[in-house]
Amino acid sequence: MVKVTVWNENRHEKKNPVVAGIYPNGIHGAISAFLEKGGFDVKTATLDEPEHGLTDEVLANTDVLVWWGHIAHDEVSDETVNKVVSRVLDGMGLIVLHSGHFSKVFKKLMGTSCDLKWREADDRERLWVVDPSHPIVAGLNQYIELEKEEMYGEHFDVPAPDELIFLSWFEGGEVFRSGCTYRRGNGKVFYFRPGHETYPTYHNEEIQKVITNAVKWAAPVDHARPVYGNAKPLEEISKK
Amino acid sequence: MVKVTVWNENRHEKKNPVVAGIYPNGIHGAISAFLEKGGFDVKTATLDEPEHGLTDEVLANTDVLVWWGHIAHDEVSDETVNKVVSRVLDGMGLIVLHSGHFSKVFKKLMGTSCDLKWREADDRERLWVVDPSHPIVAGLNQYIELEKEEMYGEHFDVPAPDELIFLSWFEGGEVFRSGCTYRRGNGKVFYFRPGHETYPTYHNEEIQKVITNAVKWAAPVDHARPVYGNAKPLEEISKK
Amino acid sequence: MVKVTVWNENRHEKKNPVVAGIYPNGIHGAISAFLEKGGFDVKTATLDEPEHGLTDEVLANTDVLVWWGHIAHDEVSDETVNKVVSRVLDGMGLIVLHSGHFSKVFKKLMGTSCDLKWREADDRERLWVVDPSHPIVAGLNQYIELEKEEMYGEHFDVPAPDELIFLSWFEGGEVFRSGCTYRRGNGKVFYFRPGHETYPTYHNEEIQKVITNAVKWAAPVDHARPVYGNAKPLEEISKK
Amino acid sequence: MVKVTVWNENRHEKKNPVVAGIYPNGIHGAISAFLEKGGFDVKTATLDEPEHGLTDEVLANTDVLVWWGHIAHDEVSDETVNKVVSRVLDGMGLIVLHSGHFSKVFKKLMGTSCDLKWREADDRERLWVVDPSHPIVAGLNQYIELEKEEMYGEHFDVPAPDELIFLSWFEGGEVFRSGCTYRRGNGKVFYFRPGHETYPTYHNEEIQKVITNAVKWAAPVDHARPVYGNAKPLEEISKK
Repeated sequence: MVKVTVWNENRHEKKNPVVAGIYPNGIHGAISAFLEKGGFDVKTATLDEPEHGLTDEVLANTDVLVWWGHIAHDEVSDETVNKVVSRVLDGMGLIVLHSGHFSKVFKKLMGTSCDLKWREADDRERLWVVDPSHPIVAGLNQYIELEKEEMYGEHFDVPAPDELIFLSWFEGGEVFRSGCTYRRGNGKVFYFRPGHETYPTYHNEEIQKVITNAVKWAAPVDHARPVYGNAKPLEEISKK
Repeated sequence: MVKVTVWNENRHEKKNPVVAGIYPNGIHGAISAFLEKGGFDVKTATLDEPEHGLTDEVLANTDVLVWWGHIAHDEVSDETVNKVVSRVLDGMGLIVLHSGHFSKVFKKLMGTSCDLKWREADDRERLWVVDPSHPIVAGLNQYIELEKEEMYGEHFDVPAPDELIFLSWFEGGEVFRSGCTYRRGNGKVFYFRPGHETYPTYHNEEIQKVITNAVKWAAPVDHARPVYGNAKPLEEISKK
Repeated sequence: MVKVTVWNENRHEKKNPVVAGIYPNGIHGAISAFLEKGGFDVKTATLDEPEHGLTDEVLANTDVLVWWGHIAHDEVSDETVNKVVSRVLDGMGLIVLHSGHFSKVFKKLMGTSCDLKWREADDRERLWVVDPSHPIVAGLNQYIELEKEEMYGEHFDVPAPDELIFLSWFEGGEVFRSGCTYRRGNGKVFYFRPGHETYPTYHNEEIQKVITNAVKWAAPVDHARPVYGNAKPLEEISKK
Repeated sequence: MVKVTVWNENRHEKKNPVVAGIYPNGIHGAISAFLEKGGFDVKTATLDEPEHGLTDEVLANTDVLVWWGHIAHDEVSDETVNKVVSRVLDGMGLIVLHSGHFSKVFKKLMGTSCDLKWREADDRERLWVVDPSHPIVAGLNQYIELEKEEMYGEHFDVPAPDELIFLSWFEGGEVFRSGCTYRRGNGKVFYFRPGHETYPTYHNEEIQKVITNAVKWAAPVDHARPVYGNAKPLEEISKK
């Protein structure tokens, strides 16, 4: 059974009654609830727990980490960031949601600014499937429509994704690469755009399907890890 | 249960006692035997059967098609080629083995000559894993070593693979992109280099692991197929 | 000086006075005019000329071929299609415009159906730059806006592009991968979406910039062609 | 005229008479000499200069930065690293040579460990061209052969390159992705493997050709920079 840890900043939920109303158990609570139904072994972790809830033991027992953060990216300690990045390179899957584009973890794995355009104006969003062969789109129709969402617009300053799965259309005139996969070391990373805290996006069944599919896709592969450093020759080297 | 059809030209086995000695049940027999152990529902089809064994019914009931051909690519009818290509675009997985690089099916899906260098001289081959995050390498070590194989050398005239998984080293001085994935429409394609008919390559357990993993990876995704053609607007278009 | 041949079907211009009004010298005339200003040695060729204007001599003297076709794709002879594809694999650049997505040449190079959604309804189109590092976007702003264009919508059934340069937003609610590069053999291919015959798109200076940049980008590289076929070893092979 | 800065650690040259013998003017001296012949405006900078020779003014006046470092990666200040990375994201080209794979700058742009296998044992290396359409291979044959070089072997822990241009064969049995391009923000990055300090690799004319071609390829594109942050809608957003 795939072991998932859902990490959430969990700050908006405490400060903003609108957010608390939509997510009474926190964004992490909503996400872990549907992932449990999806057949995963799910735990949660939040910013204000000791070590942000991401101790060595928790990370060692996490196959796939889901990440939601927004207003407190800077409060995540560099030590934790380095541990998470190491675990990804070692094989742990990582699902970065929405404003997590600006998390230290994602920026470190991308090597770019991860900047973008944004607007909170109740734009309608339509996420079009552009890779119908990908397991992350299992069970979906041609597009997912969200009546209201925050807009994220191009240019999205990330490396060209290894696989581009969703493209978003926004009512106000912008587009966005909303579903992007990246391989980093032994690990797989999926960035998925939707999920502003003031909208009930994670209650949407199609959004839940995507995240559930992504967890399956990102689960680690069991194989021998590469060996690095000084290496003896496997064949005889000629005298020259 | 994933339904696999193993297609083989099955000509070398009839003509060459060396090949018949290595593969008494044909290359298709050897491959279907280990795929059955891998938990798939496996059937075989060969060139000299009516419609090359690939009737509409067979293709409709195939989730993943494995393809081995060499000296009789031209005898595969264009009608069958077109049907196979259509099924791939519709979602059927395709595993193209070794000399299948020159099959009509693969060339049509690639759009290039698919040409390469080759030599039958008992080169040692070492297939290095270059994408350790990929499910196709599950259970493998850092490389697979084959004591003797036909050499295939660069330049391999295919489009840049969507994912590059194995690179081969050959004793005679060449390299080759030996494990390449491609998405085509709703379907997934994996090209895997080894498997010259005069060597017992498909009896090698690591090679069997790769092909088994590839079948799992290439199995179709259940989702709504894209709709093409004239489309009504989803939003109101302004008068201009 | 880069030698460009602009190929046009040149049928709409003869049948439809609206098109003839916008492009009195044909779409090929409009394109060749701005490419000449761009410093290229430009010739034109059209469907109804002998061999569609693409004789062996013309092709041998073409560095980059620009292709516009729509209602008469089937009238292009397979012989010419094969010659064009061969020249691309040999290094000739190819710029495929708008409805050329359904040309035999492009479909053959892609290996997919190249199908898409479409609508002629005066949608506003906004082409967003998603790869600001690419020479094809030299001189551009963040996006190109076209007041009215035909809509092309996803899913666009092509292989994932090697480089994705433009994404289109359409007023009616769709998105499209509008600027896509592909490497095929020794040649470079650029697909560029805009250019429906009833709109003055090729008179737009930014569209002209893109096509001019694309011709520079697609110009052949002078290098030794790969050698294929049986190859002698470069190193001694051990007895086994 | 493209402005190039060749940055070199310049330590081996001072400590090791073998290196000083091969590169009497330093590795930076050798590289800048052939780049000047290539028609670029070339300056050099080294680790022990103030600010490592990479002041704001120098960086602002650099179109393409060439980077060679090995034993003193840690001595490069984080401040300089951050400035170089920012300039790359802003459009400056970056050519990372050989042991520069472990430089802070490259690791930061990649987001991975950039680790690999290595051996100093006079392996013969053969760099095969796998993308014959790319401007970086202009003027080359099918491969470049180096009689003796340090071995770098897979797995190379970098993101899958945007374009893979060279694959190396090593006498001792390894392979390596030796020519890799990456886009980061507005900038282009090329990693090129050869160049161990105890071999005369940068005196090899074909290696010089590759680096010269790479500088041309990596030169910045003149275009409007993307705008990030809060964005007003370009279209009217409906009341919901």
